[in-house]
Order: sequence, then structure tokens, then C-alpha cells
Amino acid sequence: MPRLTIHRLGMAHPANVSALAAMLDAGTLRAPHIRAVIGKTEGNGGLNDFTRGYFTQSLLLLLSRVMGEGPEALAARIPVILSGGTEGVLSPHYAVICDEPGDAAGEGLAIGTAFARPGEAGGTDQIARVADAVRAAMADAGITDAAKVALVQVKSPAGGPGMLLRSVAAGALGAGLALGDVPAGATPLDDLSIGSDRVSASAGVEVTRDEVVVFGTAPGWSDHLRLAVRPMADALDLAAVQSAFRGAGLTADPDVPAAERARIRLVLAKGEPDRTHAIRGHRHTMLGDTDLDAQRHLRGALGAVVAAVAGDGRVFVSGGAAHQGPPGGGIIAVFAVRA
Amino acid sequence: MPRLTIHRLGMAHPANVSALAAMLDAGTLRAPHIRAVIGKTEGNGGLNDFTRGYFTQSLLLLLSRVMGEGPEALAARIPVILSGGTEGVLSPHYAVICDEPGDAAGEGLAIGTAFARPGEAGGTDQIARVADAVRAAMADAGITDAAKVALVQVKSPAGGPGMLLRSVAAGALGAGLALGDVPAGATPLDDLSIGSDRVSASAGVEVTRDEVVVFGTAPGWSDHLRLAVRPMADALDLAAVQSAFRGAGLTADPDVPAAERARIRLVLAKGEPDRTHAIRGHRHTMLGDTDLDAQRHLRGALGAVVAAVAGDGRVFVSGGAAHQGPPGGGIIAVFAVRA
Amino acid sequence: MPRLTIHRLGMAHPANVSALAAMLDAGTLRAPHIRAVIGKTEGNGGLNDFTRGYFTQSLLLLLSRVMGEGPEALAARIPVILSGGTEGVLSPHYAVICDEPGDAAGEGLAIGTAFARPGEAGGTDQIARVADAVRAAMADAGITDAAKVALVQVKSPAGGPGMLLRSVAAGALGAGLALGDVPAGATPLDDLSIGSDRVSASAGVEVTRDEVVVFGTAPGWSDHLRLAVRPMADALDLAAVQSAFRGAGLTADPDVPAAERARIRLVLAKGEPDRTHAIRGHRHTMLGDTDLDAQRHLRGALGAVVAAVAGDGRVFVSGGAAHQGPPGGGIIAVFAVRA
Amino acid sequence: MPRLTIHRLGMAHPANVSALAAMLDAGTLRAPHIRAVIGKTEGNGGLNDFTRGYFTQSLLLLLSRVMGEGPEALAARIPVILSGGTEGVLSPHYAVICDEPGDAAGEGLAIGTAFARPGEAGGTDQIARVADAVRAAMADAGITDAAKVALVQVKSPAGGPGMLLRSVAAGALGAGLALGDVPAGATPLDDLSIGSDRVSASAGVEVTRDEVVVFGTAPGWSDHLRLAVRPMADALDLAAVQSAFRGAGLTADPDVPAAERARIRLVLAKGEPDRTHAIRGHRHTMLGDTDLDAQRHLRGALGAVVAAVAGDGRVFVSGGAAHQGPPGGGIIAVFAVRA
Repeated sequence: MPRLTIHRLGMAHPANVSALAAMLDAGTLRAPHIRAVIGKTEGNGGLNDFTRGYFTQSLLLLLSRVMGEGPEALAARIPVILSGGTEGVLSPHYAVICDEPGDAAGEGLAIGTAFARPGEAGGTDQIARVADAVRAAMADAGITDAAKVALVQVKSPAGGPGMLLRSVAAGALGAGLALGDVPAGATPLDDLSIGSDRVSASAGVEVTRDEVVVFGTAPGWSDHLRLAVRPMADALDLAAVQSAFRGAGLTADPDVPAAERARIRLVLAKGEPDRTHAIRGHRHTMLGDTDLDAQRHLRGALGAVVAAVAGDGRVFVSGGAAHQGPPGGGIIAVFAVRA
Repeated sequence: MPRLTIHRLGMAHPANVSALAAMLDAGTLRAPHIRAVIGKTEGNGGLNDFTRGYFTQSLLLLLSRVMGEGPEALAARIPVILSGGTEGVLSPHYAVICDEPGDAAGEGLAIGTAFARPGEAGGTDQIARVADAVRAAMADAGITDAAKVALVQVKSPAGGPGMLLRSVAAGALGAGLALGDVPAGATPLDDLSIGSDRVSASAGVEVTRDEVVVFGTAPGWSDHLRLAVRPMADALDLAAVQSAFRGAGLTADPDVPAAERARIRLVLAKGEPDRTHAIRGHRHTMLGDTDLDAQRHLRGALGAVVAAVAGDGRVFVSGGAAHQGPPGGGIIAVFAVRA
Repeated sequence: MPRLTIHRLGMAHPANVSALAAMLDAGTLRAPHIRAVIGKTEGNGGLNDFTRGYFTQSLLLLLSRVMGEGPEALAARIPVILSGGTEGVLSPHYAVICDEPGDAAGEGLAIGTAFARPGEAGGTDQIARVADAVRAAMADAGITDAAKVALVQVKSPAGGPGMLLRSVAAGALGAGLALGDVPAGATPLDDLSIGSDRVSASAGVEVTRDEVVVFGTAPGWSDHLRLAVRPMADALDLAAVQSAFRGAGLTADPDVPAAERARIRLVLAKGEPDRTHAIRGHRHTMLGDTDLDAQRHLRGALGAVVAAVAGDGRVFVSGGAAHQGPPGGGIIAVFAVRA
Repeated sequence: MPRLTIHRLGMAHPANVSALAAMLDAGTLRAPHIRAVIGKTEGNGGLNDFTRGYFTQSLLLLLSRVMGEGPEALAARIPVILSGGTEGVLSPHYAVICDEPGDAAGEGLAIGTAFARPGEAGGTDQIARVADAVRAAMADAGITDAAKVALVQVKSPAGGPGMLLRSVAAGALGAGLALGDVPAGATPLDDLSIGSDRVSASAGVEVTRDEVVVFGTAPGWSDHLRLAVRPMADALDLAAVQSAFRGAGLTADPDVPAAERARIRLVLAKGEPDRTHAIRGHRHTMLGDTDLDAQRHLRGALGAVVAAVAGDGRVFVSGGAAHQGPPGGGIIAVFAVRA
């Protein structure tokens, strides 16, 4: 019986994987169980953010040394999904997601992964490729019903200057299509009311083909971990953030008390600067700042709202939320160990 | 009987005072009642942020035209306290604070203002000058007991490259000294455990001498407006933020409901990037980002936490909180009309 | 006989027009002779650069006070063409361009100005409006032959997010059309090999309709001022820069010697980050930097090359050079008093 | 007889060492001959620039694979000196400096390297450590007379927030002390008129102890390579830049003609934003820009001036030039193969 476990680790800089190395050395984590890594590095999160690639190279070197398998082979098997940009209170960290041996029966939270075929970013073919990959990841997890999928995380290639947000949108639509949340024929960035409330998508220059991680309920997995995913109406949707933490079995009054914080395993949020240039009728300036990228603005703000409930800055928050949750809003997902 | 009123207005750009012009034209606000203006403009908040000066010039031109008094004379009488930087969800806006005629008896929230003597920024003389100005502003408000002061807002000259945060610190110590919250002899930026939980200080290149606005309870003022001020332990202190809104008579569950939001008159927060490079034990990157000023990081994060409770982005949030609230934290103040 | 004069003045900050005020007070310049102002302010040069509006407001207030004419009336008559961004060695400054009384006969360098009709930015109608305005400005200068035009400077409205470079391009095409350098039917940003080597165009949020200034040779103007304009093949075209200075009658070996520098009246350059992401076969990173706007990169680099020849940083350099000089390059213009 | 050779290679991103890999695979360069690498990566050049570390990791992995020696051992033997920040026209590139076998007699340009003892950054002990390392590097090169040293390149640890420029200064003074250009007892950043015109120093977070590379004339080295080093009076010193290229045997009229450019092997410049806030009496804004780091301003400007003479953007330009060339200026060094 597999048991989904998540180890959340800090990093002193983007090449610092010593916390994981220590676990591997101590035997508290065995490398072959690692299924995916999701993390937040301290770059600018844009086209010239190389901290994601630097962390990935460092991580794969470590795993390669431990497992005796080449970095390329590992990269083709283990999705490493990183978001650059730890604006404001956000803290650089990474979650190592494993399927360790367990003994529970019944159903529990499962993970499945898949890599899409290579191809062009931003168009309908990317949508189809990602949809196929999501189906493959579901099968990998043992999830037979799309209704049992709680969250799909997609990471896509940046696709060159000007294409990054389009590639994110295509990845989101592809995942939504596979889940039945999005109709066939939807095209990236056109009708933004179309989307899925259980998809998180991003893109980066260091990615060469779409990577997919699916979380959902499947038979034969241990039931010790809860995942709650909620749509957020906008970047100020504090009630939705609290609801996600409560859905994962935690107190949020207004924040998670110190005694419960160790049960949090991964917090993930997607959002976007509202395209109307206003939030609840009041003008924001994120989209017209020549000095500070709109996504850096967004991550700093949304990340702080989520961190204020979570109790610390270890929040994976990523901008570019087209087709992910409501327009101008996004989604929030919380993984926590049962009490 | 004076009645303290606050009109909160939006701006389409830093020179846009048309909302105030419309009120003056319509007679819903009479210019001679204006005692102070506190606002947030969309600059970078640093040494080369000229949006504060631009707004001030535009505001004073309008008032000069209406009142037939020169801009310089108005500037010497009406504190215009601006903070640049509307990072993230923050919305450019300004609060026009007036003492309009009222009819209430008893005690109520009062305003007093004063300008300090000119002098050098950042040293003990600035502390003494600001302390004197706070005492003068208390007298102006009719507040005879420092215990009745709820909030002091100080705006100081930037004092040249490298001096800005020192000038803020001296302004804060001066106000704290006048209130009895800070011992005599304290020096700027030395012992950061010294400070006041009811002082908000900032500095800007457009300021030529320290400007002080005092809010507190005094006899003869209408009692329709409530002000609550709370210390925040750090930038994630969501409970303190809610407490301030509740102290001002508003629901905060978790945020102020839409029906109550119109009662909010002014929300003001001070904070700072934690100098230990960590918040609650987790590393933040605000202080070592060569591309993004630490105060921009802080404002975007703290502003979002406060805005998520307030319900919109009209929050005056300013960085540089030395000697204002706990180290690594700051203060939060909420003005609201009674239900 | 009019005599074209240019006074080049420094500014301590974007609202600082005291150097001009001193000249007006001293009578060394009479306000009614002012025909146009071209300057460089220290903003970021982008959508949220308000230093241009701030300078314009300050300048018009000064002129209004001196001339007893409202700021709006002055703004509708005197083009104030500003470029934000004094990256690197560039120095904030402004050139006050006048037609003072002179006594020379024959032909000389003339100025003409015009304002276009209001309208939408970025399309063919803007091209037509600007072309009409250029013809009007030529007539204003007394220039009857387009071949006698040396330089057209256009400043256009920004036209909203994402439209700025398109508005610049339309302005450039409109001017090129009026000069006969560009064929009818050209559309903005399509065929970048189409353009004029004697047009400089820019755009800003503070501009409400296209403003045009034409310089060229016309009868009845004093011949004491020389203007040389050259195309630059790329941002490293040092030979072209030297050629412009030499064309204006100055030594450039390699730079203008100190003794000749006072003869320089205005230096103006347009350029752009090469869209191929390379200069002379070597990759540049201007177009993919999430932290630093491409035009800030460009102005800092091109401005330094020009300033190194000019001998100081008083160079008007502006990015966005589509249809102005060769693709990836731009133009350089030097005004100097004859020896 | 050793023969100093320099191979200048481009990089598509900071982890891209494929150009070197191709040379090693083809046998056109043999890895054991590599003595030092000097390069320019596309980060921000500041405390959170990780592109230098990422390139270094990638480079050492390649060399380790080829040579069968661990990355740590290679790092302790081969100085890898990188400067982040390819602002403006600058192009990411690296120079691989080798001592390949040669057959010439007589004297020629030699290289020597050394690593200092570990220790604290920014103080007098760092000065002493660097001076010792320079003497060791001179001995390594076979240079017995300090007068024969043409250039010393130092790379020091960043030394924590606020210490970077102090560490650079200490490194420069240490090198100057060993050369006899700087008196004993000089302290970092105090008397800026003290310095050496043949020292280039920088610092970075990825460096753990001072690394020194010395170039000078020594017996037994091939004489096919020329190195010219010149002081620059300020960031606009075009004549000094041309003089360095001419000193290295190249035409500079005004730039190096295309036919000669392949002879350029490495171009290195140091400079700094003038601390007086002015260049040749005209105000610059590099030091007060809250949005753009002063060193990014400087590199973009100085780099463009040098590149305009060199003919392309492959220029190693680094900010922070205290004690290196005149205050407000810096130094320029050109390596070129004899015609």
C-alpha cells in the first residue's frame, strides 16, 4: 500500500539541497520513493530567472549521486516544478513528494505523474498533449474517475518571449479538458470565464516539455494526508484561503495556530493581477509598472495573504492564473497531515 | 463643537485631484475645514519617487485656487503626508481630514497639527524638534494628557542619500518621547526594542521640515468617529489586524463585510522587513534583492494582509518602522464611523 | 528676421525650473519667444513615469505666472517634449527653443510647430493626423520643400497599456509620410525596413494629442546654428555619432574638446534594442529582462555612447525607434552654434 | 615554453558551456591547460545574482567529466572570475585562459594564479591575505619584478549584506599593496585617491576566498599576445578606451575595424558611479535610483562606451572601482593577438 508523504525543506540559496542530502544520508527518506518536487526559488520568476534551473541541476546532481542514475534520466521521470519569486514574506523552500510504503487499506490521497510529448507551446496541440498527460498521470495514480481528482499541477515550457502566459493558459486548458471542467475547442486566453477550479499551471524557460502531477483519491493509498482546494474570487479572498486550510483539517482562526503548523505539508496558490486594473472597484497599479513586473506584484500580495493564514512564508504562489479559478482570482490548495 | 471628518478619495494618477475638486465645487466639503491630507501615491516610495511632490503640488494648486491663498502658505499650514508605492493590491488614494462644524457635546476624536522647526535630519536635534511639534499638535487638538493620544503621524525630510531610514527613526523617537513611550536619550536605530506602539513615521525627499498630525480624545469634539491602533508582532500578524478593525467597531470575520466597508475612513499600517532575514524562523529575501527595494517588498506584503481584512486596497502602508511597534513588526490603525 | 536660439538648462529634480526662472527674471530670455521645450527627466520612461507630467506642470506654472496666460492655453501652443529615463551617465536637462529677434538675411535653421487633431493612437488615422501636423509645422517654419527639413520630432499619446510602441511607430510613419520618406499605406510595426532617417518619435502618458516640432532651412532665419542628423546602424555606431557632431561643425576626436562643448545646444538620439536579440552577431539580453525594462537598457547604453562623444551626459536619448533610422539602430541629431 | 592563449566563447544561458565542450571534444583545447576563466553572466550582478554560481557549477561539471577530477578540487585550482550583469549592449560570454605549449624564446605575457587563505571580508586582514596571494601568483607566473605586472584581477567573497563594496575595496588595496602602488596601512573606502591603475577587483556571494589572477611579462613565455591597461578618468573617457585598444596593437578609429576584431581576446573594464553625483559637472542619477541598482546603471553605460570601440558587446565590465584607477573612473584592459 503506498503512502503519500511530503517533506517540506528550506534552502539557503537556489543550489542548496543540503536538507534533502541530510535526510537521504540519514535514511529518513529513500531516494527511489521520490515522485515529484515542488518548490519556490528566489529569482524574479520571469524569462531571465535561472534560479529554477540552478536548483534543478543541483537537485538532480544529488539524486544522481545517491541513486547512480544519470541526471537526464531522473529529469525524465521526476517532475521538478518550481516557481521563481519569493517576494515579500515568501520563503524559499521545496516539497519532496514521495510514495513511501504504507499499510493502510481503503482509499487515500494518491499521486500520479506524466510528461507530455514535446511540441510547440501556446496552441491547441499543447492543450491536447497536456490533456493526454493528465490522463496518463491519473492512470499512474490509479484514479479512474475525474471527479476524484483534487488538483492537477502543470509546468510547461516558456515558449519564447511573449509566449509564457499563453503557454500557461494552454497547460491549464489541457488539464481542465482532461478533467471535464473545460469544453473541447477552448483556446488559450480567449474566453477567460472558461477554466477549472482544480488546476494550477505555470511555465518556465528551464522546462522542455509539459510536466504533470495529479493528486486525487485512489484505492490502495494510505489516508493520512488531506488535500483541500478552493477557488479564490480575487487576490483579497481571505475567506477562501481560510476555507482551504479548514478543509484540510486545520484550524484557521484567523490563522493556523503554532501547534498545528507542523501538520502543513504544502501550500500552493495561483493568482493573477486583475485585468480590469481594479480589485473590488479600486484601481491597482500592478499592470502598468515599468519597474516591477506584474507577477512579482501579484506574488508578493497574494503570497502574504496566504502566508498570514498559514502562519509562515512557505507558500508556493505563482502568477498567471488564466483558466485557473475565477478571472482576477485563482485557486488555493492545502496539504496537511490528519491530526 | 468641531467634528472630525475624513473623506477618502481615489486618484487616477498622481496629479489627479478631481474628486476633491468636485466636492469643493459641490459644496459638500469646504476648503477652510481641511486640516491634513494623508495619501498613497503610485511611485516607488524611495529617493527618486516624485509622485508625492507631484500630488502635493496639484493638491495645493487646487486649494490655492479655491481659497485664494498661495500654495506656500497652505503648505505651511496643512500637513500633506504621502507614502509612495502602491505595490500589489494597494490602491492610490488620499484621505482629506477636516474639522467640520458639529453639535455633539462631551469628548470625541480630535486632530491637531504642527510643523517642526527646520534642521538637520537623523540626529538628536530632530528628536527634540519632533517632540516639540507633537506637544504643539496636542495643544492644537486640545489634548492635555499624553495618555489620550491614540496616534501620532510624523513625516520628515529624507535627509539625503542613506539618511532616509535614520530620519524616519528620529521622527518616531521624537514622537515617542513626547508621549512618554520612549526614554530621553534614545538615539535613532540603536536600541530597536525602544519605541512606541502609537507612532507612525515616514520620510520623503519632498518634505522640508517635520510635519506632525496627532489624533486623540479631547473635550468638545464630536464622538462619531472611532480610531483603534494596535501593534503588530510581524508582517503576518493577521490577528492584530483584525483586532484593530474590531476595535474601530467593525466586524472582521475574517474581513469587513461589504455592507460595513463604507464606514471605514482611513487605514494606516507601518511595517518593516525583519532585520534577522527571517519571519517566524523562515528565511525571507526582502533585504538582499538587488532588483527590488526592501520597502517595496514589505509594502506589497503587509499591505495585502491589511487589505484582505479591510476588504479593498485603500490602505496607507509605509515601510521603515524602526521604533514604531515591535521590531520586525509595526502598527496598524483604523478609523471608522460609528454604526 | 527670426533667430533660432536654444538654451540648455539643468534641473535638480523634475519640478525644478529655477534655471529658466532666473533667465526670465534677468531678462536674458523673454517668455513670449519660447517655441518648444525638449527635455529629459529622471523617471523610468514608461507607463508609470510621472516625472514628465510633473516637469510640464511646473514649467507651465512658471510661464503662466510670467506671461499671464493660463497653463492650458500655453500647453496648446508650446510643445513640451520630454523623455523619461536618465539611465547611466545621462543628466536631467531641458532645452528651451526660441525664435528671438535677429538681423541676418539669407537662409537659416528654422523651427515650426503644430499640434495634431485628437484621435485614437496606433492606427492609420494617427499616421494621417501626424502627417497633417508636420505639414502645418513646415508651413509655420516657412519651409516649402520637404527636402529642406532636417529633423521632425513627434510626441504622441501613450494610448493605453501595450499601445505605447505602436503609437510611437504611427507617429514616426506619419512624419515620414509628410516628408516623402515613407510610402502611403505603411502600417505601424509591420515592415520595419520602412522609415525615415530624419524623424524622432516618442510617446507618453502625459500627452493628449500628437505634438510636432519641425527643424529645417527656411528663408529669413539667421544662419548661426547648425543641425546635423545621421542614421545609426546599431547602438554601437560610434562613427555615425562622431559624424553628426562633425556635421554640426564640431571636432570629434574622439570626443568634442572641452573648449567647444559650450557650442553644443541640443543632442538628440533615438535607438532601440535590436529585435533579433543580437548586435553584430552577439546576443544581448535587453529584451528578456524581467527586472529591467528593455528601453531603460537601451537608453543607458546608447546614451553613454553619445555622451562619450558629446563630452557630457546632457543627451536626449529615447527608446522605441521603429521606422526611425535603420532597424536595430536609430538616428542622432546635433545642434551647435557656429564657431 | 608556455604560450598564453585565450578562447572567448558565448553562452546561450548561464548554464551553457557547450561551446567549451565542443572544443574539448574536438581536441582544439585540452582541459589540463586551463588556468583561469573570466566571464560575464546575465544576472543582476548583486547579492541575489545566482547566475555566477550556476555557470561555475556547470563549468566545473564539464571539466570534472573531462578530467576525472572532482569539481571541488578543480575550483580550488582554477580561478573562475565572473561578473553578473549584461546591461544594455553587453553580451554574456567567457574567456578561457590557458597556458598551452609554445616554442617561443625570450619574454612574453604570462599568467599566474593563487587563492588566498580564508578569512573575514572587508578589513585589513583581507588586504594582507590578498597581497600575499598576489605575490604567490607572481611567483607562479615567473614574474620577479612588480613593475612587470600589467594587470591583477581579484575576486573576493561578498562578505554579507552591506559588505560587498568594502570587500572589493580591500581586495583592490591588497593587490595594490603587493604591487607597490598602494602604501601600507591604507584602509578600505577611506582615502579614495589611493589606488592602483593596474588592479581590477570584484566580489560575489558565490566566492569563498579571494582568488587572484596576475598577468605580466615573464621570461620563457611566448610573445604573441599583447595586453594594454589604461586608467579612465571617468565613465566618458573615450580617449582612454581607444588608447587601450591601440596599446594592444589594434586600430581604434573610432572603433576596431571588423577585420581586426577576431584578434581581440578579452576586454575588461572597471568603473563606478561618480560619488559626487555628477560627471564633468552635470548631475547623474545613478546613486539615488530606488528601482535600478547603481552598478547596473554603471555597467550599462561604461560597457557601451567600451563596446562601441571594441566593435561588439563582449566586454567584461564590473562596477565598484574603489582604489582601482581614478575616483569616479576606473581602468580598461585589452588583450589582443599580435597582427
